[in-house]
Amino acid sequence: MKKLGLIAGAGDLPLLLAQSALAQNRMPIVIQITQPTSLQLESIASETYAFGIGQVQKITRTLLDSGVRELAIIGKIDTGILFRPFLVDPTAVRILARNRNKGTRAIVAAVIDHFESKGIRVVEQHQFLSRLMPEEGVLTKRQPSQSQWADVEYGMQLARQVADLGIGQTVVVKNRMAVAIEAIEGTDEAIKRGGKVGGKGVVVAKAAATDHDFRVDVPTIGDQTLKTLRAIGGGVLAVEAGRTFVLNQPALCEQADQWKIPIVALA
Amino acid sequence: MKKLGLIAGAGDLPLLLAQSALAQNRMPIVIQITQPTSLQLESIASETYAFGIGQVQKITRTLLDSGVRELAIIGKIDTGILFRPFLVDPTAVRILARNRNKGTRAIVAAVIDHFESKGIRVVEQHQFLSRLMPEEGVLTKRQPSQSQWADVEYGMQLARQVADLGIGQTVVVKNRMAVAIEAIEGTDEAIKRGGKVGGKGVVVAKAAATDHDFRVDVPTIGDQTLKTLRAIGGGVLAVEAGRTFVLNQPALCEQADQWKIPIVALA
Repeated sequence: MKKLGLIAGAGDLPLLLAQSALAQNRMPIVIQITQPTSLQLESIASETYAFGIGQVQKITRTLLDSGVRELAIIGKIDTGILFRPFLVDPTAVRILARNRNKGTRAIVAAVIDHFESKGIRVVEQHQFLSRLMPEEGVLTKRQPSQSQWADVEYGMQLARQVADLGIGQTVVVKNRMAVAIEAIEGTDEAIKRGGKVGGKGVVVAKAAATDHDFRVDVPTIGDQTLKTLRAIGGGVLAVEAGRTFVLNQPALCEQADQWKIPIVALA
Repeated sequence: MKKLGLIAGAGDLPLLLAQSALAQNRMPIVIQITQPTSLQLESIASETYAFGIGQVQKITRTLLDSGVRELAIIGKIDTGILFRPFLVDPTAVRILARNRNKGTRAIVAAVIDHFESKGIRVVEQHQFLSRLMPEEGVLTKRQPSQSQWADVEYGMQLARQVADLGIGQTVVVKNRMAVAIEAIEGTDEAIKRGGKVGGKGVVVAKAAATDHDFRVDVPTIGDQTLKTLRAIGGGVLAVEAGRTFVLNQPALCEQADQWKIPIVALA
């Protein structure tokens, strides 16, 4: 069986990817970088290792020693870590030094280049998880109202522009006004702020940049996103069709219908 | 003496504008819309009135009855009011009905059009306050470091793009990353969030849209902005030259120098 390296952050996505990989005849070799490996993930991987995010050299060596030629990087990484001191090995130091002052995206791209230069191809996350990506349409039974559609369209256009500027993926709008824009504080925080400022009925739109690199991140919504939106009395959740992971779509949409929150995927 | 209508929100700017108007031989006729008229403002205006923000008809009538042909609109208006119920008279209802779902800027433009259609010209705020606008350069003795300059330039470029999208005026950046983007929560809140997410040394940049309407708002920094930045251990405050009011510039820059926070104005 071919091997698939899996650098795993937090959340359910690493496990889902590992399961799909196995179903596609790839044996997952897991490098956990933010928390103890989940038992389920351990049970399906033939090898599991744990390293810090800055131990690039050790991670590379481990993958190569295991015969990995294809690598997926997936799962939440607390972006706050970038502003705190963390352990970096010589390879990470070299990457950081060459890309200092160029921003997170440049550093991430340099890390990927590093893996590829060692003969380890980094694949797009949805190569193994395309089933999580919705097609265009309203995913819930509940449909947006005409006024909500106007906010959905405005919000999605704005979210794409904001993502293209390299800022963030999520915007919260109401009556064609931006009430909250996510930078790096995270989607939940942006939604909460949007509710605080805009009151009930705000619309949340999430989008990725035109040139978004799907090898390290796919915009994702799930249970937590919906709960946060419900908590502030939010109106609609809008994502991009074919460019967003919707976790547990059937259950999520059932819950959303109960709460009268339409979920839509725009092309 | 010619009269100058003055629709006055909160803060010091209405008084400063009234003083400048008087110095330029215009008698201020004050319409206070958010709080009791300050005694100083009352003492230099020949007439003062108080109305709610939605009493457009009464305001128009009062200005016309006083013989006002030129009007300045200045001072802070709590944007939160737009999401709460407030008293609107028939003229305001008509303006809102015609511009519903077009956003704040369209409504503000419609209110200005309304005044102008009644023969009351709305002037740009800095017609009477250009002395508050800095020229290009570092306003403090303290100069930004080379790394800070890189953030200032990135931040200002981003702030202009964000403003052009109709989002907000303030961005907080660090190491060429956006850590907080202001929507309508206000500059202070955005700065606080930037400090929380990005830690010490963040750079704040404030800019207006290319087509910004200086009749109803001029980006402004002052004592409060600097205090908030100091409270989070911020690094630099950057504004646009000739497009920003800097309140109390000499005292502000002295304080900023003591706190080692450079203030720069970019062309």
